[in-house]
Order: sequence, then structure tokens, then C-alpha cells
Amino acid sequence: MHVLILGAAGMVGRKFAESLAAAPLGDGALRLSLVDVVEPVAPAGFDGVAETLAVDLSAPGEAERVLAGRPDLVVHLAAVVSGEAEADLEKGYRVNLDGTRALFDAIRLRHDRDGWTPRVIFASSNAVVGGDFPDVIPEDYILTPQTSYGTQKVMGELLLADYSRKGFFGGIGLRLPTICVRPGKPNRAASGFFSGIIREPLVGQEAVLPVPDDTRHWMTSPRSAVGFLRHAATLELSRLGTRPNLSMPALSVTVAEQIAALEVVAGNRATALIRREPDPAIARIVAGWARAFDASRALSLGFTAETSFEQIIRAHIEDELGGRVG
Amino acid sequence: MHVLILGAAGMVGRKFAESLAAAPLGDGALRLSLVDVVEPVAPAGFDGVAETLAVDLSAPGEAERVLAGRPDLVVHLAAVVSGEAEADLEKGYRVNLDGTRALFDAIRLRHDRDGWTPRVIFASSNAVVGGDFPDVIPEDYILTPQTSYGTQKVMGELLLADYSRKGFFGGIGLRLPTICVRPGKPNRAASGFFSGIIREPLVGQEAVLPVPDDTRHWMTSPRSAVGFLRHAATLELSRLGTRPNLSMPALSVTVAEQIAALEVVAGNRATALIRREPDPAIARIVAGWARAFDASRALSLGFTAETSFEQIIRAHIEDELGGRVG
Ligand SMILES: NC(=O)c1ccc[n+]([C@@H]2O[C@H](COP(=O)([O-])OP(=O)(O)OC[C@H]3O[C@@H](n4cnc5c(N)ncnc54)[C@H](O)[C@@H]3O)[C@@H](O)[C@H]2O)c1
Ligand SMILES: NC(=O)c1ccc[n+]([C@@H]2O[C@H](COP(=O)([O-])OP(=O)(O)OC[C@H]3O[C@@H](n4cnc5c(N)ncnc54)[C@H](O)[C@@H]3O)[C@@H](O)[C@H]2O)c1
Repeated sequence: MHVLILGAAGMVGRKFAESLAAAPLGDGALRLSLVDVVEPVAPAGFDGVAETLAVDLSAPGEAERVLAGRPDLVVHLAAVVSGEAEADLEKGYRVNLDGTRALFDAIRLRHDRDGWTPRVIFASSNAVVGGDFPDVIPEDYILTPQTSYGTQKVMGELLLADYSRKGFFGGIGLRLPTICVRPGKPNRAASGFFSGIIREPLVGQEAVLPVPDDTRHWMTSPRSAVGFLRHAATLELSRLGTRPNLSMPALSVTVAEQIAALEVVAGNRATALIRREPDPAIARIVAGWARAFDASRALSLGFTAETSFEQIIRAHIEDELGGRVG
Repeated sequence: MHVLILGAAGMVGRKFAESLAAAPLGDGALRLSLVDVVEPVAPAGFDGVAETLAVDLSAPGEAERVLAGRPDLVVHLAAVVSGEAEADLEKGYRVNLDGTRALFDAIRLRHDRDGWTPRVIFASSNAVVGGDFPDVIPEDYILTPQTSYGTQKVMGELLLADYSRKGFFGGIGLRLPTICVRPGKPNRAASGFFSGIIREPLVGQEAVLPVPDDTRHWMTSPRSAVGFLRHAATLELSRLGTRPNLSMPALSVTVAEQIAALEVVAGNRATALIRREPDPAIARIVAGWARAFDASRALSLGFTAETSFEQIIRAHIEDELGGRVG
């Protein structure tokens, strides 16, 4: 199987490529095409064909270029994330809308020429909802995002659905939950603390908690995110009916529950490193985020996620810390 | 008030301009800027300032040009309609998505330069829903259109909401029901017969009915559509909260109820002119259309529509036939 990953230098893209290298999907030899505006790196130890390409997907002609190898599977993860899309409106629309559209149009035109009909997996987000919504967001709930990023993700979902309906490709959109524990250095995303309060204490470092302990959010591990992509890569697409975009399963937990799980896994030496430093601005942003989704469609299609926060912490320890808590 | 109408040569645009000429809105002298890819005509007898411009909104630079006069109100009705957008994918996206985006971006850039913040009314459609939906579509129901036209209308709604949230303009989107009785010659729209079976018999001509009598649909008169635009032009926008796109009220009627109302208004000399000629292809398309919407938000905001099909027929007779049934 020839897999093209757009956004392959990102957190999910890197992990997905590593997962494929370790356990290929589908028939034939695995071939990887890794594309990102930042030069991607092939998975360590992978001895199949892997080409890497540093490309701005939204630049004219680039979408055609990255598709030249006619991959069987196109995994579209490239995106300007929430904070940046909000601060730089033009960049957000250029990458997240125009880039996505350029990709889908390039596939369409190629399909029209020679019948090539790849599978396309699109990473959408829980940010597609916003404004007023119930505690658990029903499968049928209207998408009224309250960020430019969320708006661009819904537009991507719509385009995916329309082009799939027309038969240009076989599309599936996954509304990814917030991914926690996000590995790496702390970043400035407003959601960063959900990972920080676990990741930093596990390596003996202090972490700041800017919101109240009863703050509830919708999370899953990087391992589950990779699992979603793997499952979407082989799922029978006709089972999606007229709605190829799916809310992924995840865990609805409070910060208090996160901390309790951390105590179970790593003791109060770890939880003592969490410093409460209320930040009303962050608390306000987070209050506008979805706390839970009904993901019964995805569950019935075989997507799975963690069912306790302890599992999420243990996945992080296994995947990022070599199984040891320092 | 200076009003810019895009799509001013279309059915709704023409009627809205005539309505404004007859009864202006807001303060000061009415000034009309009428724009369409087909040269628009100023309302007969209007003695205020009216400029007409034949412009393709989706062509580079044209959106800036039509906004040069800094109108107070921008009414965006220009669109490639359903059948054409489905048959010509590129044209549909170019006009309905790119044209709308070019318009909104030109307003945004001008707003950024000099603070101009017009009101923008966007004509969306009942075609934003599709696939599986209940008999009456709830206000909170997910929009999963099953046509490219519907997809483009949802994208327009999303862009309107995002740009309004950012304060670039004061936006309001109206999901217009099917407009019936559409005046003029029969056209090839799949929905054409809903108007045809009333319009033709009222002037002594035969009309073809391609679907079963129990077919139910969501309709309102051209007069109500103009009323929606007038109301949206002055409504306090803060009342829209985080959701500036509204399902308009209308009447949910069956073809049988349409015919019964025609009989009351014009007798069986009229209804005898309806020839049943089942067309499975049309019946299949129509079966995928919404039959009714919950429009309680719009109703509570003061939008009104007909409550019986007789009223719709009488509006047509008054507005198009000089009050006489031939
Ligand atoms: N991580 C999360 O919590 C989360 C939640 C919901 C949805 N998502 C979505 O999942 C996808 C992957 O998430 P992630 O956490 O790996 O994000 P990430 O930011 O780590 O990776 C995104 C990648 O896209 C690349 N990119 C940006 N602009 C590009 C362009 N013009 N051309 C080519 N590449 C470009 C970036 O360089 C980056 O490597 C994204 O689409 C994201 O929006 C993530
Ligand atoms: N009539 C209905 O039943 C109905 C129902 C739901 C929504 N709507 C929407 O309401 C609006 C008005 O409907 P209508 O019945 O008057 O449609 P219409 O087709 O009569 O008018 C649309 C006008 O847009 C113009 N136009 C098309 N492409 C253009 C371009 N590139 N630049 C400038 N102008 C362009 C056309 O020339 C036409 O005059 C449309 O946006 C339509 O999608 C109509």
C-alpha cells in the first residue's frame, strides 16, 4: 500500500508513519510519501520506500505535485492549528481551506482523467462545535463553530462529503478529540495544560494549571488517534452512508479526575508538582469547548478509545518514557 | 439608506428592489446599487439614485469594485442554482463559494482599512439539509447537504458566521424555503412543478405534475421572501447570538393540498388543467428534500410567512395577475 501523509512532520503524522512502518496495512509492500511544510523525517529503521517532501500544500501547483505517485491512501493532517488560525485569519483560510480544497481538487481532476479513486482520510476536530450546546453533543447536532479554525474544519468536512458523494475519492472525516498526553515541549495552545499537568510531573517537573479542577474536557491518547487513522484506512466506506464525517470516541474527564489518575499511577510526588495559577482568559476559552460527544456511530463502526484516564497516562509512559516513571 | 443587491436581475432580487422603491427602509434617501452577471434593470418609476452594473462577482477584483460606494446594506442573492451547480461543479464552487468569499473578503479588507461595517444579508437555502432527517427539521439539526449547491450554501453560512463573529460586518443568513408561486416561464428546475401546477392553470394553460399527490414540501411566496429580506435589513442583530443563520418560516404542504387550494380559489376549470405524468427521476430527487423545518427562532425574531396555501395563491394573483384569475 502506498500511503501519502500530509502534515507528516506533525505530532499525529509522525506517530502514524511510525505505526505503519512497524505494522503495515493492506496489501503489498508499504510505500510512504511524507509531506509537510517542515521537512518530514522517515520513521527510524523503516527499510521500505519512503520519500519526504517539504511543500506548502496551499501554494499553487503543489497539490498536483504531491499526488504524482498516485497513492492508494491520502491522509490529510496538514493544518494551521487553532490559535494561529484565529490570530492570522488569512493564513488559516489559506492553509486549512484553500490547501484542503487544492488537495481535493487535484484528486478530482486526476480522477476525471484516469479514474484513480484513492481513499482520503481528513482530520477534523472537536472544534467544529461551539456556541450553545448540550453536555453531550448528539450525533445529529448542528455544527456552529466559534473559531476560524473550527469553521475551516467544517468546510473541509463539507467538501470531503460532497466530493465523496460525487465519487471523486472515498472520503472519511474524523473529528479528533483533544489529544492528551501530547508529547514534547509545552506549547502555547490554550489546551496545552491538559497534557502539561501529566507530562511534566511524570518527569519531575512543575506544571501550571490555569483552570478550576472541575473543568471537563474530551480527550484521547496519541495512540488512539493513530488507531483511528489505521481503522479508517481499511473500514468499508459504504457503511458511512450519506455522512462520511464521524465524531471519534474519547474520554470525558475533569481535571480533578486527571489528577486523581496521576496520583494512582505516579503518587503524590507527581501531583504535588501541579501548581494552581488561575488564568481567567484561558478558563474562558476552555469553557467554550465541548465536554463530550455522542460517538455511537464511530463506536458501532469499530473505532475504539481509552475508557479511563489511567489508561491514557499508561499509554504515555509506555510510548514516550520507555515504560518508566522518573 | 444605500442598498447593494447582488443577484439583482434574479427573481427575488428584482422583487426586493421593487419593494424598496415602493417603500424605502431606514433613514435618508434610498440609493440602489444593482449588480448581476446579467445587466439588472432599475425598478420602474423609481426616481431615486439607482446604478446598475453587469458584473461576474467571482471574477478577480470585481467584489472590490461593486463595494466602492460603501453601501449600508449588502444583500447577497447572486448564485448558480441547484441544478446547474450539480451539473457544472467548477462553476458552482466558483460562483457560490469563491464569489461569496470574494465579497466577504472585500468587505473585511475595507473594514480593516476604514472601519466600514455594513450589514450583510445572505440567501441560504433549505437545500442545506439532506440525507437522513426527520419530518420536521429541528433548529439544532446537523447540516449534511446532498448536493453541491447545498454544500456551497452551508459554506457561505459558515463564512458569514465567522466573519460576523470577528466583527468585519453584521451578517444574517436566511435559509429560504422553495419559493412558490415562482413567476415567469416554466424552467427546468426539478422543483419547477410546485409553481407550474398553480401558475399555468391560473392562466388557462396545462401543467404537468411529475410526482405523487402526497408529496410534501416547504414553500413560501415571493412576497414573503421579500418580507424576510426587509425584516432582516433592520432586525437588531445582537438578538441572533452566536448563530446568525436562520431557517425561515414557511408552509409545509402536500401537492394534494396545493391542488385543493387552487380549486377553492379558481375552481375545477383550473385544476382540470393539471396533467399527472409520473417521472420517477424527479420523484426521487424531490423525495430527498426537506418537508418542513422548525422555524421557531425566526418566528420569535418576527419573521412571518403564509399559513395557508390559499394565501400563497392569492398573493400570486395580486402580485402577478393584477388580481384577476383568467
Ligand atoms: N492534536 C490535537 O489535539 C488535535 C485535535 C483535533 C484535531 N487535530 C487535527 O489533527 C491534525 C494533526 O494534528 P497534530 O496534533 O499532529 O498537529 P501538528 O500541528 O503537530 O501537525 C500539523 C502539521 O501540518 C503542517 N502544515 C501546516 N501548514 C502546512 C502547509 N501549508 N503545507 C503542508 N503542511 C503544513 C505543520 O507543519 C505540522 O507539521 C491537524 O489537522 C489538526 O488540526 C488535532
Ligand atoms: N427561489 C427559490 O426557491 C430559492 C430557494 C432557496 C434559496 N434561494 C436563493 O435565493 C437567492 C435568490 O434566488 P432567486 O430565485 O432570485 O434566483 P435567480 O436564479 O432568479 O437569481 C440569482 C441571480 O444571480 C445571478 N448570478 C449568477 N451568477 C452570478 C455571478 N457570478 N455574479 C453575479 N450575479 C450572478 C443570476 O444572473 C441571477 O440573476 C439565490 O441565492 C438562491 O440560491 C432561492
